[in-house]
Amino acid sequence: MELLNDEYYMKLALQLAEGAAGQTGINPAVGCVLVKNGRIVGMGAHLKRGTPHAEIHALQMAGPEAEGSTAYVTLEPCSHYGKTPPCSDRLIKEKVKRVVVGCTDPNPVVAGTGIERLRQHGLEVTTGVLQEEACRLNEAFNKYIRTQQPFVTLKTASTLDGKIASRSGDSKWITNAESRAYVHTLRHRHQAIMVGIGTVLSDDPLLTTRLDVPALNPTRLIVDSGLRLPLGAKVVRDRSAQTIVLTTERADETKRRQLEQAGVLVWAAGAGPRVDLKRAMTLVGEHEISSVLLEGGGRLNGSMLEQGLIDKLLLFFAPKIIGGKDASGNFEFEGFERMQDAVRLERMTVRQFGEDVCIAGYPNYEKRGGAS
Amino acid sequence: MELLNDEYYMKLALQLAEGAAGQTGINPAVGCVLVKNGRIVGMGAHLKRGTPHAEIHALQMAGPEAEGSTAYVTLEPCSHYGKTPPCSDRLIKEKVKRVVVGCTDPNPVVAGTGIERLRQHGLEVTTGVLQEEACRLNEAFNKYIRTQQPFVTLKTASTLDGKIASRSGDSKWITNAESRAYVHTLRHRHQAIMVGIGTVLSDDPLLTTRLDVPALNPTRLIVDSGLRLPLGAKVVRDRSAQTIVLTTERADETKRRQLEQAGVLVWAAGAGPRVDLKRAMTLVGEHEISSVLLEGGGRLNGSMLEQGLIDKLLLFFAPKIIGGKDASGNFEFEGFERMQDAVRLERMTVRQFGEDVCIAGYPNYEKRGGAS
Repeated sequence: MELLNDEYYMKLALQLAEGAAGQTGINPAVGCVLVKNGRIVGMGAHLKRGTPHAEIHALQMAGPEAEGSTAYVTLEPCSHYGKTPPCSDRLIKEKVKRVVVGCTDPNPVVAGTGIERLRQHGLEVTTGVLQEEACRLNEAFNKYIRTQQPFVTLKTASTLDGKIASRSGDSKWITNAESRAYVHTLRHRHQAIMVGIGTVLSDDPLLTTRLDVPALNPTRLIVDSGLRLPLGAKVVRDRSAQTIVLTTERADETKRRQLEQAGVLVWAAGAGPRVDLKRAMTLVGEHEISSVLLEGGGRLNGSMLEQGLIDKLLLFFAPKIIGGKDASGNFEFEGFERMQDAVRLERMTVRQFGEDVCIAGYPNYEKRGGAS
Repeated sequence: MELLNDEYYMKLALQLAEGAAGQTGINPAVGCVLVKNGRIVGMGAHLKRGTPHAEIHALQMAGPEAEGSTAYVTLEPCSHYGKTPPCSDRLIKEKVKRVVVGCTDPNPVVAGTGIERLRQHGLEVTTGVLQEEACRLNEAFNKYIRTQQPFVTLKTASTLDGKIASRSGDSKWITNAESRAYVHTLRHRHQAIMVGIGTVLSDDPLLTTRLDVPALNPTRLIVDSGLRLPLGAKVVRDRSAQTIVLTTERADETKRRQLEQAGVLVWAAGAGPRVDLKRAMTLVGEHEISSVLLEGGGRLNGSMLEQGLIDKLLLFFAPKIIGGKDASGNFEFEGFERMQDAVRLERMTVRQFGEDVCIAGYPNYEKRGGAS
């Protein structure tokens, strides 16, 4: 049991936010807890874009108890009119006495303005409580709001010799059921899933979220320079999620129209012959997709890494060795000349899923060279 | 703090044994603690082959206090004349009252005879206390005493894409200083270190143990089918450890004699053209080397794995991605057709050395197929 203090209530607010992560679309996941005279009087989370923010739900639960209470909010209350009126105004109106903030607004244009507004109206504001956890919860949103580029999380499942299939292409299954269920949970938490056409042609995957409970399906992004996507592919015929093909301006016009008639969106990223992946990510961002789960083959993973387009890596390793010089590796690209030029992962974590191991981290593309 | 009970004293005996692990050569590491009337009256460990066993050192420390005491021994006391008289006789003679045993003798011919002898003389004997830990401590000895084959521990250091060097062959350094110090500690704990001639030709390594304190050097085993080992190589010129070349009967007689004149032992394992690795391991066992640390390149690792000659794997992963299709992988061999045929690791453990991750386990060569 933890000590009852600001962190205690902020942690609860974070749990509320995290519970709803994945269902707020391009909006951040936010939680709010209202406390008065030693009791929780309100709780709320933002549940869906276009619906009330976390603070509003919590204030509604509290009713008249809101007056004189302390609000724990995982993200700085907004001070601008978006799809809903500003939350800072509502906190002022309901006579909340003190506001404790986890993460300040990651949008540099408005950061601090919500807090400033609260202080101007006499509310006491405390910032930086569980700040790291609160900011990490919305790492995709935080990147997107600053850059309009999606946050890309790569997931691979490989053997201990780095292979994602046997020499004959067999990949069912590398990781265990526990790891695979976690990956489906990740799909629920991302706005889009991205694979290369090679994966579609060899596995004909659905790319939906399959768990013991109903869940949300991410938008399907297929990188397909030559528009080889068959009209009979599951990702074309299945309508439980939107499918978007990322191709080039050279793409065959007839095939393009056929795919569009089948309900698929086709976006041209660059003049070709290969898909311009940077341009593709910009298009994805322009269409309000802020988080992408990359489940590519070795070549797509390698290209995305080479171009610095991956923000986070989740590398699952199964306790197996398969061998095979030409068996696909988790990253296939030209590679670096010197070991000190390797892309390094920072803020590493290691987690076990049964006997599988997941190594996670954030690539640092700039700081190459001999640090350690 | 732990509870004072049989496990408490056995754990101390195990710590004594483990402290001296690596310095007993082909003998097991053994610890002993003598306890009487609530006090430790003696402690001992086996320190070196040909010198007294753990029990004898502990009895000597206890002197007359040994009478009526309880002896905690990590390994069943011996009942036969080896290089020293049997310890069970000495425990009886010193009127020890009770003996608590961790691991029973792994040699099936003599297992239980020491315990039987003690019981016949009226001593109370308890077995199975911290048995798993006690047996694991001497896993190399336990295999050797049953099979006369050495226990082979493979160590690799790779990037997260399974590479042990960049495409240009650069491998300095993949893992961090902490991991590398641990590997040198492993060298101290093994009787021999084994590499392929490729490693010697490209890196000219010393293969000695380099730590902040003086340590023991393992015997150097070089797998070298064509006797390409240069007379000027460090492993030939350096005399701080014996070097043994494992070659074939086809090896050039002149080069063989030159190497022998330089102090190197040359052993022929099979008719050639490649070294018969199974035969090589039998030769190593015949020469009373029970533990081998394999620090090979991808091909030697792959061949040893394919032939089922590796008993344990320690796979270090550094938080880096280097790329390069032709960069050396940690295991290079033909590979298996189906994912379910992969060699599986059992009894996995995961340990972090700074930001490096070490995944350890025991390969199961028999139980292939779809368990999970």
